[in-house]
Amino acid sequence: VHLISLRTMAKSKFEYVRNFEVDDTCLRNCWIVVRLDGRNFHKFAEQHSFTKPNDDRALNLMTRCAQAVMEELEDIVIAYGQSDEYSFVFQKKSNWFKRRASKFMTHVASQFASSYVFYWKDYFQDQTLLYPPGFDGRVILYPSNQNLRDYLSWRQADCHINNLFNTVFWNLVQKGGLTTSQAEEKLRGTLSGDKNEILFSEFNINYNNEPLIHRKGTALVWKKIDEITMKTIKLPNEEKEKEIAVTRTRKKVTSLHCDLIGEEFWEEHSEILEDDS
Amino acid sequence: VHLISLRTMAKSKFEYVRNFEVDDTCLRNCWIVVRLDGRNFHKFAEQHSFTKPNDDRALNLMTRCAQAVMEELEDIVIAYGQSDEYSFVFQKKSNWFKRRASKFMTHVASQFASSYVFYWKDYFQDQTLLYPPGFDGRVILYPSNQNLRDYLSWRQADCHINNLFNTVFWNLVQKGGLTTSQAEEKLRGTLSGDKNEILFSEFNINYNNEPLIHRKGTALVWKKIDEITMKTIKLPNEEKEKEIAVTRTRKKVTSLHCDLIGEEFWEEHSEILEDDS
Amino acid sequence: VHLISLRTMAKSKFEYVRNFEVDDTCLRNCWIVVRLDGRNFHKFAEQHSFTKPNDDRALNLMTRCAQAVMEELEDIVIAYGQSDEYSFVFQKKSNWFKRRASKFMTHVASQFASSYVFYWKDYFQDQTLLYPPGFDGRVILYPSNQNLRDYLSWRQADCHINNLFNTVFWNLVQKGGLTTSQAEEKLRGTLSGDKNEILFSEFNINYNNEPLIHRKGTALVWKKIDEITMKTIKLPNEEKEKEIAVTRTRKKVTSLHCDLIGEEFWEEHSEILEDDS
Amino acid sequence: VHLISLRTMAKSKFEYVRNFEVDDTCLRNCWIVVRLDGRNFHKFAEQHSFTKPNDDRALNLMTRCAQAVMEELEDIVIAYGQSDEYSFVFQKKSNWFKRRASKFMTHVASQFASSYVFYWKDYFQDQTLLYPPGFDGRVILYPSNQNLRDYLSWRQADCHINNLFNTVFWNLVQKGGLTTSQAEEKLRGTLSGDKNEILFSEFNINYNNEPLIHRKGTALVWKKIDEITMKTIKLPNEEKEKEIAVTRTRKKVTSLHCDLIGEEFWEEHSEILEDDS
Repeated sequence: VHLISLRTMAKSKFEYVRNFEVDDTCLRNCWIVVRLDGRNFHKFAEQHSFTKPNDDRALNLMTRCAQAVMEELEDIVIAYGQSDEYSFVFQKKSNWFKRRASKFMTHVASQFASSYVFYWKDYFQDQTLLYPPGFDGRVILYPSNQNLRDYLSWRQADCHINNLFNTVFWNLVQKGGLTTSQAEEKLRGTLSGDKNEILFSEFNINYNNEPLIHRKGTALVWKKIDEITMKTIKLPNEEKEKEIAVTRTRKKVTSLHCDLIGEEFWEEHSEILEDDS
Repeated sequence: VHLISLRTMAKSKFEYVRNFEVDDTCLRNCWIVVRLDGRNFHKFAEQHSFTKPNDDRALNLMTRCAQAVMEELEDIVIAYGQSDEYSFVFQKKSNWFKRRASKFMTHVASQFASSYVFYWKDYFQDQTLLYPPGFDGRVILYPSNQNLRDYLSWRQADCHINNLFNTVFWNLVQKGGLTTSQAEEKLRGTLSGDKNEILFSEFNINYNNEPLIHRKGTALVWKKIDEITMKTIKLPNEEKEKEIAVTRTRKKVTSLHCDLIGEEFWEEHSEILEDDS
Repeated sequence: VHLISLRTMAKSKFEYVRNFEVDDTCLRNCWIVVRLDGRNFHKFAEQHSFTKPNDDRALNLMTRCAQAVMEELEDIVIAYGQSDEYSFVFQKKSNWFKRRASKFMTHVASQFASSYVFYWKDYFQDQTLLYPPGFDGRVILYPSNQNLRDYLSWRQADCHINNLFNTVFWNLVQKGGLTTSQAEEKLRGTLSGDKNEILFSEFNINYNNEPLIHRKGTALVWKKIDEITMKTIKLPNEEKEKEIAVTRTRKKVTSLHCDLIGEEFWEEHSEILEDDS
Repeated sequence: VHLISLRTMAKSKFEYVRNFEVDDTCLRNCWIVVRLDGRNFHKFAEQHSFTKPNDDRALNLMTRCAQAVMEELEDIVIAYGQSDEYSFVFQKKSNWFKRRASKFMTHVASQFASSYVFYWKDYFQDQTLLYPPGFDGRVILYPSNQNLRDYLSWRQADCHINNLFNTVFWNLVQKGGLTTSQAEEKLRGTLSGDKNEILFSEFNINYNNEPLIHRKGTALVWKKIDEITMKTIKLPNEEKEKEIAVTRTRKKVTSLHCDLIGEEFWEEHSEILEDDS
């Protein structure tokens, strides 16, 4: 007993260590972006026999996890993913967890990672997950709508450049019979036009007909949908019950594989960018 | 083709957005602590029928995840967990990921979270995991050894206070037949001594005999162990092969349920605290 | 000699301490505001017999120092001052000293403080400066034009509220014969309307006729002026030298005492707010 | 009147901009160092005809300003200066202005700068100050005593290296008749030993006999001194007044030009480094 009351006192004696926590509040009125990257996913992909250059199971699992993050956390207005990365955009005026950067990035990282294992079997039925994967994350702030759009354009341009390279590279290896070093050598210094030419002349592939999900990556946005449910009611001055259709508007996460660089997407989804004041 | 080379140029046009990333390097020569907390674990525990006041399956799963974090990441010298939280201490001189705070906290959070789902079935055989859980994390820096010890003492004192309360509370409810509100009412304003007295006089429980894992939480440290393996060798000037024993020293994560507040633990594990210069 | 080469080596041995400096780069594409406040200026004003409620010598000296800051440092587009404070607004895209916050605030603070002593005698001829004054400063970032305008409006509303209070207070004391406690008591809980009424009915003062510099504070902006200088030239195919007028456009700091809250000022000085992208 | 109450309301409408201020609290239990550097002091020295390689008037003025900073601000335990820079060390446990970094650096910078102009005439009687100088500052945190000592050693080693170079360089120019480019050329690639040799063989100067203030810079520390004042008292049961000596201990800033790299200084002034816990 004596010992225990000493311990209770001790708690308050130790509590000063809380003052070493620092405030990491994100600047107000800025878009908050959290980007995740798979840890050592090159090796992870090898060990789990991902198909090259793109494994649709893996891409769809990533998107399933991103959807879970959007549904589970607050204030995410758009997410964009490609390869082993995903970016989440929280709205400018969000006050979730008082805008503390550490809360944003650890909630996104942990929810994404636990979802990855949880939903794995829905996409990799015949493939056992060998170990729990890790992801790293960061927070970046963008003051203006233009900055945010340029960020997403940057990631999508990155998707394009990598996918074009990977498509040629793996065609050279898988169909062209080159070793990986030979393929690398052949592609050194080539421009986009050269790569397109190789694809077309050697493999009869028009890059622009490649699947949109590979060329554009995946954007997740909220879409309003009308849910119609039947409800049985009994009106006061009628004897019989009646079935009526009730329409409820609900927001649902939808995935898109489209261009984010031009104006069109942003005009069609004008609700994403709030007024820039 | 034309479009694509435009896009490639576009990439460098957008790349300026990288400059919005901020440097979050942790101050050198400070202990780096990452603490994780389960998100909405009160509700999670209800939904997964955790036993009260402590569910050993859940505690051991947490520790399994913490072990995975220690083994997978670099430079963690000690971890301490209780209830739905775990703290990880990276060594003062660590230069892992150039000491970037976001790297530390998101790697810990994601590795822990994915491990939680991955190892769930090893601890909850008969219980289905209903959804992927989230964790939040933070980074705290401690300049001196004393500050770090006080941090760990603070978390262990917290463990003690909560466990004493919960032990009495759930005995009053489960064995004493009180409602939760009645139990709360009865305990309002009581000191540690009072709670011990209730436990002893009403339920014949000596709190000091309660399991150490509940009273002290769990510390994970590295332990050197000698692994002896047999190896078959053939010496040049002998005709027959020979079996010899080869001893290799390896470091392994070990769990302890002991007092961290006094001197004893730190004297026994003097390698944890580097010289404080 | 031996000793000295040891010392030289020592330097590189000590140089690791540079790594403890942290990066305090201001987020890009945000307005950078540095606000200075006089340290213990209440006491300073007493000791230097500042007139109440406003001392025009002191106000003009502050503005002279702010002008020096604008001329000496880079990228300041507007400054605003009242009482013993001054705010300096650096343009959004400024890359002065790589946007390091500490550079901005210490350069402003030191330049302002040294100017205060340097120009003192130009405004306080008959008054000796008793000791060198101090100023504290801070950096605040504003992502949007609206945020910046609201910041300046906030400071000007503050100027108005304080000046109205001080004008009534010191009239009550200086002309009304009240003690300072009695004046304070009388003003407790009064609204702006009440204060205007006291000024008008008791002292025949229409607050709106008070000097603009006291009611609005001072804004410093850059104004383009044409400087005409006479230059003597000798044309190749003429025998005599000739005097011609050469016009050169120069930017000069100008002070204004006008409303910053409404639209008018910002329309007239539309160059201050860059396009908000 | 109506207008004014609108304005008052307006103030609260604008007040949200305060939330854009960020917390820049310095990590607890770390030494807080503020280092100032003169802005464009190379040019400033030229324009004010500072003697080369060292101008004692300028060095002593710097020290006078540093003394003012130590006396005016709180919690500075040691300051160290050389050339146009000065470092101020605030004690580890200081809670001055809640440890806000911006407060530390702007108070130091502004107090130093205003003092520079204020005390100028005490050191440069015959020399008019042409314009108010600027200084930039930064805050650096050091967790351990060893780190702090290494910081001061780094600055003192820097003083030594620069002073040795400058001494040789200006002797070559002023007495040796070399142009500055010739002197630079001659010193390129030389080690400390070579420079000492040139000084000795060409100018009969033993560098170790150069003034300590130039070789070691200036450290400012607090020194306890006993002040004896005579006080006239009248004891109750005596008729005559009596003069007695009253001793009062006061702390006073003292300047030293000594080695800070070795142990001796720190043993003699053991009160500077608090216990490192």
